[in-house]
Amino acid sequence: MTDTAARNQRKIAVIGLGSMGLGMATSLARAGYEVSGCDRAPEALAAARAAGIITATDPAEAAHDADAVLSVVVNAAQTETVLFGGAGAVPALRDGGIAISCATMAPSEARRFAAAAAERGALYLDAPMSGGSVRAAEGALTFLVSGPTVTYEAARPFLEAMAQTVYHLGEDIGTGAAFKMVNQLLAGVHIAAACEALTFATKLGLDLAQVYEVISNAAGSSWMFQNRGPHVVEGDYTPRSAVEIFVKDLGIVEDIARAERFPTPLAGAALQLFLMTASAGMGHDDDASVARLYAKIAGLDLPGPAAP
Amino acid sequence: MTDTAARNQRKIAVIGLGSMGLGMATSLARAGYEVSGCDRAPEALAAARAAGIITATDPAEAAHDADAVLSVVVNAAQTETVLFGGAGAVPALRDGGIAISCATMAPSEARRFAAAAAERGALYLDAPMSGGSVRAAEGALTFLVSGPTVTYEAARPFLEAMAQTVYHLGEDIGTGAAFKMVNQLLAGVHIAAACEALTFATKLGLDLAQVYEVISNAAGSSWMFQNRGPHVVEGDYTPRSAVEIFVKDLGIVEDIARAERFPTPLAGAALQLFLMTASAGMGHDDDASVARLYAKIAGLDLPGPAAP
Repeated sequence: MTDTAARNQRKIAVIGLGSMGLGMATSLARAGYEVSGCDRAPEALAAARAAGIITATDPAEAAHDADAVLSVVVNAAQTETVLFGGAGAVPALRDGGIAISCATMAPSEARRFAAAAAERGALYLDAPMSGGSVRAAEGALTFLVSGPTVTYEAARPFLEAMAQTVYHLGEDIGTGAAFKMVNQLLAGVHIAAACEALTFATKLGLDLAQVYEVISNAAGSSWMFQNRGPHVVEGDYTPRSAVEIFVKDLGIVEDIARAERFPTPLAGAALQLFLMTASAGMGHDDDASVARLYAKIAGLDLPGPAAP
Repeated sequence: MTDTAARNQRKIAVIGLGSMGLGMATSLARAGYEVSGCDRAPEALAAARAAGIITATDPAEAAHDADAVLSVVVNAAQTETVLFGGAGAVPALRDGGIAISCATMAPSEARRFAAAAAERGALYLDAPMSGGSVRAAEGALTFLVSGPTVTYEAARPFLEAMAQTVYHLGEDIGTGAAFKMVNQLLAGVHIAAACEALTFATKLGLDLAQVYEVISNAAGSSWMFQNRGPHVVEGDYTPRSAVEIFVKDLGIVEDIARAERFPTPLAGAALQLFLMTASAGMGHDDDASVARLYAKIAGLDLPGPAAP
């Protein structure tokens, strides 16, 4: 490959190769980008290599001379480490490279990271996403992006390779993060409500599969009821998204709400339900395990494995 | 009209001509049934007559020699009065007529009314519904029916004249009531969650119309978010369904849950939010007024009229 050809193929580093990051890396590679991945976990690196993704030993090596780095880690602390810590990705980017951050975090954290990127001559995009690992692998995520239009336009080809829908929600870093928190507030409450309703239906002696079908077609439905309901009906708690994810995300929502002096009684109650479920030993199981918590409390039998 | 022709046109009485009952009566008349309506409120009677519905002075007169009576009142107590009280409808039905009860109520109340109907030689169908006044007028409701198949089949032509979907959920009276409670648990939590999320978004400085659009297409969506969200975005609290309806329906859910010793922390929190909204003077406004409660507490400006 000549130097010119090498320069024509844009390079992106993907930091965090869990089920979301690996799907996103695969979608980027499928779109023809040079992708270099990195993860702390040897199993994640092995899975990525088995999927044909080139891997690096640390974020700096992955991001060496890259046009962009995509950070797909779980929270603000990990984002800070992989972008700006020892062997962090941002200083390794080519001049004017873009850090695209996907973790759910407070708007103030996103603003802090954008300033840190600017100090190092890099651009920053606040780009949390909605959609699970199946959509990540299909390149069908939804991105809730905010940041300067020039940065957004430069990053858009990468985002479109991974997404069905990309929203540019404004010029201000932090707006994307705030939209994601509003979405997670609803998503978390709806998962917990679906679990409360399905176990209440069980207590009332109703047929769960029939409840799922009828409510899915009635005014009580939600995206989460339709998506998570089958996990309860079929008793399958293989983690598509784990209880701990909502302990984290509703925790962030509650931190911000408390700081803003804004009461969120429903999100607060839902967080306690995810915490109880994690406390009962189901933190790494599917988040529909909140139903197993209710069943454990009320002494009910649901399909599939009971709570520990 | 000859006696034979008169007997060929099936007659149904509709007791309760509020926005739901009037739409249902209109759908039945459109399907060619002889419809006789009745309501305590003079304004409701006037509106029904303006819509071409024949009205009667009491349930007994409305149900005189009818094949069925449709009870569209707000709760079990009113259902008992209009079906079995003084000038009640059931004794006035032709022999073997059917009482079709639509109010949200406890399964045990539905069973009690079925027994009372049987004592008077009438059939009874437990037939709560889902869908608002717009769908009632269009004949596009969803019915959650339970009762003996022979009763269901006899009532089905009436139900299909009012519905897009009719579920026959089992032979046992009370199963329809239980499905309705599960639906209302979710619907009530989802309305309150939509209001919590939209006011939280306002506190975070986000554009409400944009939040509505983005969340409607993301994993945080629900039927109620999509349906009630525009009331908040547009600041229109004209009651399509009033706060008091969910004070009532979540009250029934909580009564049953307490009697069954089944904890419902989310439905309990949602009921308190509807109660607070009613307490703040908005009981007869649209149920999306829960958003105005949050705004009143947090000192936020939403579009449209503020809480009193």
